Amino acid sequence: MTTFKAPVRDIDFVLNEVLDYQAHYKTIAAGAEATPDMVEAITAEAAKFAEEVLSPLNKVGDEEGCTWNDSEVTTPTGFKEAYQMWIDGGWQGLSHPTEYGGQGLPMSLGLIKSELIGTANWSWGMYPGLSLGAMNTLIVHGTEEQKAQYMPKLCEGTWTGTMCLTEAHCGSDLGQMKSKAELQEDGSYKLTGSKIFISAGEHDLTENIIHIVLARTPGAPEGTKGISLFIVPKVKVNDDGSLGERNSVKCGSIEHKMGIHGNSTCVINFDDATGYLLGKENEGLNAMFTFMNTARIGTAIQGLAASELAYQNALPYAMDRYSMRSLSGTKNPDKPGDAIIHHPDVRRMLLTAKAFAEGGRAMIYDAAKYSDHMVQAETQAERDAAENELGFLTPILKAFLTETGLESASNAMQVFGGHGYIKEHGMEQIYRDARIATLYEGTTGIQAMDLIGRKVVLDGFKLYGGFCKKLYKFGFKSLIGGKRRGYSAKLIGYTLAWNWHTVKMVARASKNRDAVGAASYDFLMYSGYLSMAYYWARMAEVAATKLASGEGDTAFYQAKLETAEFYFSRLLPRAKAHGGSMGSSTESVMGMDLERFTVR
Amino acid sequence: MTTFKAPVRDIDFVLNEVLDYQAHYKTIAAGAEATPDMVEAITAEAAKFAEEVLSPLNKVGDEEGCTWNDSEVTTPTGFKEAYQMWIDGGWQGLSHPTEYGGQGLPMSLGLIKSELIGTANWSWGMYPGLSLGAMNTLIVHGTEEQKAQYMPKLCEGTWTGTMCLTEAHCGSDLGQMKSKAELQEDGSYKLTGSKIFISAGEHDLTENIIHIVLARTPGAPEGTKGISLFIVPKVKVNDDGSLGERNSVKCGSIEHKMGIHGNSTCVINFDDATGYLLGKENEGLNAMFTFMNTARIGTAIQGLAASELAYQNALPYAMDRYSMRSLSGTKNPDKPGDAIIHHPDVRRMLLTAKAFAEGGRAMIYDAAKYSDHMVQAETQAERDAAENELGFLTPILKAFLTETGLESASNAMQVFGGHGYIKEHGMEQIYRDARIATLYEGTTGIQAMDLIGRKVVLDGFKLYGGFCKKLYKFGFKSLIGGKRRGYSAKLIGYTLAWNWHTVKMVARASKNRDAVGAASYDFLMYSGYLSMAYYWARMAEVAATKLASGEGDTAFYQAKLETAEFYFSRLLPRAKAHGGSMGSSTESVMGMDLERFTVR
Repeated sequence: MTTFKAPVRDIDFVLNEVLDYQAHYKTIAAGAEATPDMVEAITAEAAKFAEEVLSPLNKVGDEEGCTWNDSEVTTPTGFKEAYQMWIDGGWQGLSHPTEYGGQGLPMSLGLIKSELIGTANWSWGMYPGLSLGAMNTLIVHGTEEQKAQYMPKLCEGTWTGTMCLTEAHCGSDLGQMKSKAELQEDGSYKLTGSKIFISAGEHDLTENIIHIVLARTPGAPEGTKGISLFIVPKVKVNDDGSLGERNSVKCGSIEHKMGIHGNSTCVINFDDATGYLLGKENEGLNAMFTFMNTARIGTAIQGLAASELAYQNALPYAMDRYSMRSLSGTKNPDKPGDAIIHHPDVRRMLLTAKAFAEGGRAMIYDAAKYSDHMVQAETQAERDAAENELGFLTPILKAFLTETGLESASNAMQVFGGHGYIKEHGMEQIYRDARIATLYEGTTGIQAMDLIGRKVVLDGFKLYGGFCKKLYKFGFKSLIGGKRRGYSAKLIGYTLAWNWHTVKMVARASKNRDAVGAASYDFLMYSGYLSMAYYWARMAEVAATKLASGEGDTAFYQAKLETAEFYFSRLLPRAKAHGGSMGSSTESVMGMDLERFTVR
Repeated sequence: MTTFKAPVRDIDFVLNEVLDYQAHYKTIAAGAEATPDMVEAITAEAAKFAEEVLSPLNKVGDEEGCTWNDSEVTTPTGFKEAYQMWIDGGWQGLSHPTEYGGQGLPMSLGLIKSELIGTANWSWGMYPGLSLGAMNTLIVHGTEEQKAQYMPKLCEGTWTGTMCLTEAHCGSDLGQMKSKAELQEDGSYKLTGSKIFISAGEHDLTENIIHIVLARTPGAPEGTKGISLFIVPKVKVNDDGSLGERNSVKCGSIEHKMGIHGNSTCVINFDDATGYLLGKENEGLNAMFTFMNTARIGTAIQGLAASELAYQNALPYAMDRYSMRSLSGTKNPDKPGDAIIHHPDVRRMLLTAKAFAEGGRAMIYDAAKYSDHMVQAETQAERDAAENELGFLTPILKAFLTETGLESASNAMQVFGGHGYIKEHGMEQIYRDARIATLYEGTTGIQAMDLIGRKVVLDGFKLYGGFCKKLYKFGFKSLIGGKRRGYSAKLIGYTLAWNWHTVKMVARASKNRDAVGAASYDFLMYSGYLSMAYYWARMAEVAATKLASGEGDTAFYQAKLETAEFYFSRLLPRAKAHGGSMGSSTESVMGMDLERFTVR
């Protein structure tokens, strides 16, 4: 069974010592409440809930899974009780407006909460997590009446929400969607269709579930331009807010999956179900991006969570398993062998997970500032600018951190040797649960195309340029006056090489547009390693400064510097491989005719 | 559900066009029987059995798993019937001496058989596969009486054998083993102890199971020098070969694992069980290496099998799933989107699996020549030389091909998008089944230390030098007269860089012996990418020559060249990352004090 300890010191380090969140909170209205004491208290309470309530349910969720019985879904033992504690704690509305019963705190605080919850028990965390996506979509696109009708219960957590996008024949390509919505005389719609892969689509945690559904109205334009968004409650809501009759929305089955067994992945059938237009007709896909961005950052957290949980659970095993003698001399003379943490390759695996977890935390927390501004900045221009910046970082965070999370989870299994493959230790569960993260909310390949296509090439390299400028600025500044000049030089060197590879890719793309796709994965992974290098350089700078000033907590800062050294020495060089691959001809990927793929 | 089609054309290409197996078979006595017709017939029959009998049982095995009931183990539906067909077909003794009822064919033919069986259904293949390990150990170390008593039934397949090494507290470090064996007046031994992770340790396929067990005699030296090997039959065997009374060997439980559910992973308890010394007292560990080498090559095949099966099953999905339009122009105008194989990143994932499968096949088949010589060469000197050469290649094959097999399996899931995570498609089963391969028979880390420590440094770089010489020789020869000079140049360049990294590593090791361990994983992975590059260069040379000569089969050779191009452009550059990491300071891995690993 896995255990979880909230890394509160590290959270504090990133928030306050590296990213100066208190200064950031002064720039948004919601930040006034987010005093250091408040942030600390919320982190501590979320930590306690995650450690004591959710972590022990992680294995139960995996073993029992959800059960489906004639459209009803039963969640694993203990999930419902934990969810009631969640409601009682007022957690769901933490970052939502006080007028709907929320606490009106910054979005960034919600992400920290999500990290702690999700690291302890990802499957459980998806129930309130998906609901956040629905809430964010409603807040931005709903009418005042719609918000008044649904938001209070959603903020309270007594209802949850879902997002219903995928159909069996289309996931990434939503333009192929077939679900229909027909206008009724009373202004409502009747929805018909079948959606799949609806996480938390049906469960026994709440009395109602508010589905946000993508569908087409009759005569709507083909493709993505003819998609509208609808609110379809499982149980209809009367004007006074009380529950009415059951809507014709049914869970047709749940999927049997590799992992995240504790979360129900549902087929949801709409059979002339009553729904209400959300936002404008035929503008559903754009509205959907509100949700997608939330969900993608949420999934990036799943990658960080996998690295953190994997590291935490492999570490004690590496400390307590005695096998072989260290080549550099006996370390545990009273034991039959040395603790395996003394073997370099075991350290390599542990430090990889540690570097990805702590580096990923810094990446996400810094991006979370944009999510605060996107929602709570004063002017529309500021909000738009923040949304653009976050839009650039989102595919990097989502794809890179989930890929590295998988690697961490696999490494942690590997530390256990054959025991890692056995269910009782929980290590293989971490991997299986994390494996979904590179698939849902847009695969790594989709993120890679979103980044290089939409966010770089179609953007005319503006956001890309700004990103590079940020890296160069820090790099050159710390090269002159910093304490870790070697890292500054590497940061500059790798950014320069990235620019050069990008230029060459663009040149190739002028001849063959597939050059963009052929380079996309390597471009994304390069950007991930580079971006993480920037944060490791910043963290190392802070740690070195603190150490030099003799402010105490020496072991913590020393560990930061050592992990940074590992990152720059052993992980960053992988960007070279991605650069090499990115620099290859488009033909090397696209040259083969279809029939030549055949197995013979 | 996955399907499997034996890649017989590719097997033929590697055996005959690249590696000239017919010339090789002229160098061993057993080769006389292995005529082209015989090889083709055996491949075709094994292919048929794998495709028609074993492949359909792959999903059944995963879903049902094995069941344990008071020391008895029931295998999944259909496994027993398939095993009877295996016996009837005379498959088990294919490469074993005719005097025991085997067919006396070369070991290499047995590996091809293992590949086909294992790709179709790895869990099933482990039952006869583990038995081969026991048979090989018996043949080398058994007395004439022992061989006469056990080999005929093992060759026939009516009995199987196992290898009992691991105990709960020790796997890699067998010196810590505690099982005891006490000499009795009749010359037999009484064994007491508990072994874990015994694959195929108990099942319902055969009437008897012959366990080969590692244990200590009273007063034996500590550590690995006091380990002896014993034959412990599940049912005792009378002098006339008939079955006697049940021995006190019991299966205490079976493990619940991430995958390979169809194979029983057993706790085997010996409670004053009757056993017989195999080989000399206290020389059990050396004798064990006979088995380990067989098992490690067998596990390398599991990596190749994962790449092959993953590729085969992702390909049709990529051809038939229509999503988004190709950036370089519409490819399927009559469909709502283009087949996803037209998207570069999907091709990247497919070609990665294809390159690893075909490259891995060439690597294993060439190494199999040494296994033929090791067993069947005329002189002891030739046999020893072959064993040394194979010993050098074994950790590379085992670790590199299982790691790349996992990547292929993960890529193939990724091609399916979210559907890859759902059990019904079988893609996640390929991954779960393959995941054990980097753990058992020595983890990747253990292989890496075996390679760099024992096979390179302690060997005084002789085998390493020979390996490099082979690469340079081909590289320079083809650089002058070959058809793919770019590959020759790359092969030479990457070998030179590897030598340079090795020299630096040795220099560091003179100051700190942990330098060897710190570089071990990257050294191994580099050697793997380099070794596969050598085979891709050779295959490309053959394919280019055949194409130039207009010998027909153009599509096959063209596909080879395109896959080679993908390998050199997109996969080989990863060696640079491993070189970079290998070149880092030992401190970057070993610098952190234990207490600083603590999560805070």
